[in-house]
Amino acid sequence: MRMRKKSWAQPFLEEHHEYVLKQPEKNKGKWREVLGLENGLLHVEIGCGKGDYFLKMRELYSNDGFVAIEKDSNCAAVAAKKALDQEHSRTFMINADAVAIEEWFEEGEIDVIHLNFSDPWPKKHHTKRRLSHSAFLARYAALLSDEGVLAMKSDNRSLFEFSMLEFMNEGWNLKEFSVDFDSIASNDAVTEYETRFKELGQPIYRLVVSKPKANKGE
Amino acid sequence: MRMRKKSWAQPFLEEHHEYVLKQPEKNKGKWREVLGLENGLLHVEIGCGKGDYFLKMRELYSNDGFVAIEKDSNCAAVAAKKALDQEHSRTFMINADAVAIEEWFEEGEIDVIHLNFSDPWPKKHHTKRRLSHSAFLARYAALLSDEGVLAMKSDNRSLFEFSMLEFMNEGWNLKEFSVDFDSIASNDAVTEYETRFKELGQPIYRLVVSKPKANKGE
Repeated sequence: MRMRKKSWAQPFLEEHHEYVLKQPEKNKGKWREVLGLENGLLHVEIGCGKGDYFLKMRELYSNDGFVAIEKDSNCAAVAAKKALDQEHSRTFMINADAVAIEEWFEEGEIDVIHLNFSDPWPKKHHTKRRLSHSAFLARYAALLSDEGVLAMKSDNRSLFEFSMLEFMNEGWNLKEFSVDFDSIASNDAVTEYETRFKELGQPIYRLVVSKPKANKGE
Repeated sequence: MRMRKKSWAQPFLEEHHEYVLKQPEKNKGKWREVLGLENGLLHVEIGCGKGDYFLKMRELYSNDGFVAIEKDSNCAAVAAKKALDQEHSRTFMINADAVAIEEWFEEGEIDVIHLNFSDPWPKKHHTKRRLSHSAFLARYAALLSDEGVLAMKSDNRSLFEFSMLEFMNEGWNLKEFSVDFDSIASNDAVTEYETRFKELGQPIYRLVVSKPKANKGE
């Protein structure tokens, strides 16, 4: 979602580098430790927008840790402000484009990747920008732990259909699938954005996939 | 869909055994020949209801042949009557439970299997009756040709979600996928039933899958 430019955003982010990390690569391979996780899972949300999802997930899953990535500085500042105004332990943010994600996370380090209401990039020549394009999937697979999963929610029919075909054709395993997802009943965090779409009668599509099994021949 | 008992159904079916075949097993391995197909595909619809789908498909795909199976005699009679009242070449019907399907078709003989608006059998203890239950999928795979596909349409959310998980977990390959299928735009036959659901705002879900590739190790 586009957000109007906020003059306070950049200075606010600069002031809060203890939370919106300037050098996330310093935590590479050490996120569990940095977040103080014991048995909990390490979640990474790519494109956290205004932050409602990961902040609510933090409440729902009290043993887990969350790293939220958002490239738009205005959104990231709103999310960070919200986080810092409340209890925000076990969470960190990164305000940068996720194309650099391998610099920040070790192979196999992430337990759950979340893609929520990602930009659908509807034009054909923008296909490769979609966060579920096959080119990204191999990278996610490398970052996920053996039992790791990726969870995706969207209100966008075309993006969801595209994504399903990409994941399935790349050999990911379908664990959960819904064409009218009830986040609340499923103990998944609900954002205002999602609630608004639901109220308008727009179903929420969702998939949870685990990464492809390594070929037996390898 | 349940239909009221029709007193004329059984006698009508008895009178038309040249079309609603009494001994379909006689055509096993010879359907292409019996239907007069040259390069066309052999389609089998399991649960054809009142027959609108396969009769319209026959018009849309003028080289292909269609065998329509319907266990309910009342439905089958309505479908057969409709067929016999119009041009019906390249089609036959079977009025029996598809559990006997291997008696009628040779392994690898079918090019396309259609499941349209199948009974959702919503109760948990009826799961195995759903036509997309994993126990059926292995049987479909054996009956399909190497390039064969199965196409499924449904207005039932739970059945579709269940089916998607069954197909994917059994290693079928997702070729097409829609959460709001436009049959007309896609050159697929539209039935009254489907049109009515669409008009009520109920999306039509659809998947097309090809059968699992044989394990390389075999």
